[in-house]
Amino acid sequence: MPHIPVPDNLYGIRSLAAWRPETGKPLYELAEVLLRGHSPLSSAERELIAAFVSHKNDCFYCMSSHAAAARYWYKDEKQTVDLVLDDYMNAPISEKLKSLLTIAGKVQRDARTVLTEDVEKAKQHGATDRDVHDAVLIAAVFCMYNRYVDGLATIAPAADDYKAWEEMGKRMGSKGYIPPR
Amino acid sequence: MPHIPVPDNLYGIRSLAAWRPETGKPLYELAEVLLRGHSPLSSAERELIAAFVSHKNDCFYCMSSHAAAARYWYKDEKQTVDLVLDDYMNAPISEKLKSLLTIAGKVQRDARTVLTEDVEKAKQHGATDRDVHDAVLIAAVFCMYNRYVDGLATIAPAADDYKAWEEMGKRMGSKGYIPPR
Repeated sequence: MPHIPVPDNLYGIRSLAAWRPETGKPLYELAEVLLRGHSPLSSAERELIAAFVSHKNDCFYCMSSHAAAARYWYKDEKQTVDLVLDDYMNAPISEKLKSLLTIAGKVQRDARTVLTEDVEKAKQHGATDRDVHDAVLIAAVFCMYNRYVDGLATIAPAADDYKAWEEMGKRMGSKGYIPPR
Repeated sequence: MPHIPVPDNLYGIRSLAAWRPETGKPLYELAEVLLRGHSPLSSAERELIAAFVSHKNDCFYCMSSHAAAARYWYKDEKQTVDLVLDDYMNAPISEKLKSLLTIAGKVQRDARTVLTEDVEKAKQHGATDRDVHDAVLIAAVFCMYNRYVDGLATIAPAADDYKAWEEMGKRMGSKGYIPPR
């Protein structure tokens, strides 16, 4: 049960944004510009980084919802998302994305451990400054969303309610990040 | 040296917001509404939570700047901030604020460990749902700012440049959070 009286018909961050729209507004704008705005990274790749970091933080709601959004963007390649969450270094993704996930993982654990060598390696695989920036900010931002959602004990659909997660991924993918009204 | 070519005349998150204004905008709006907007917590208390969490994340720039902003708001009671960062449970602050800092510390480490008992304890000391919400969100948000600033290795004034930090605290306290132009 959530620690504060958020609406009980909404899940995760949506319940928090409905309860406190003043902070919900910039939180949703941030998600929209970061995951759907212009970037050298595709929305599929950005949602995958979001799901990867949420998985590392053991945030069930954010991991499940952004994995669902990543599956929506990867279309029929649904396995990509699960293979990355299981073992990204051996998953069927580009070396560039692997090196950005390594940086994202360091940001999640202790951002001070991101080294020049990590950034150089990503650049050797074709990453630009914007790729590096966006990967670091997505990782940082999900360390926030994960903590906000779990620190207030918000609710989520059941793990095996595949239909609910798929619909959530479709909504996030097709409509983007619009705060609940 | 920063990992990406941010302006070299700006420190910390200001350099990142100048380099990427599209994400800087919601990041600054979030800081403004959260630390200066309406809340049952004073700006002094909110800046103190921000400094406390940044200290736990060992983020030198955010800790120093928000400690300076908290000192600005606490006025001549400058020692309060240092006493809290050193040992908050024995610092001269309210039991309510101590219980909210305990919750903020849990959010910083692992937000899933915030228990109903922690929230109940804060409420016994006079905290409302909004106090709890704001403490959790400030803690979560600084876990993001800390990682963004350190993950991209932004620069900061020297630790012993007391004048620079004091001026920064005064600017943050008196002008609020406005992105650099």
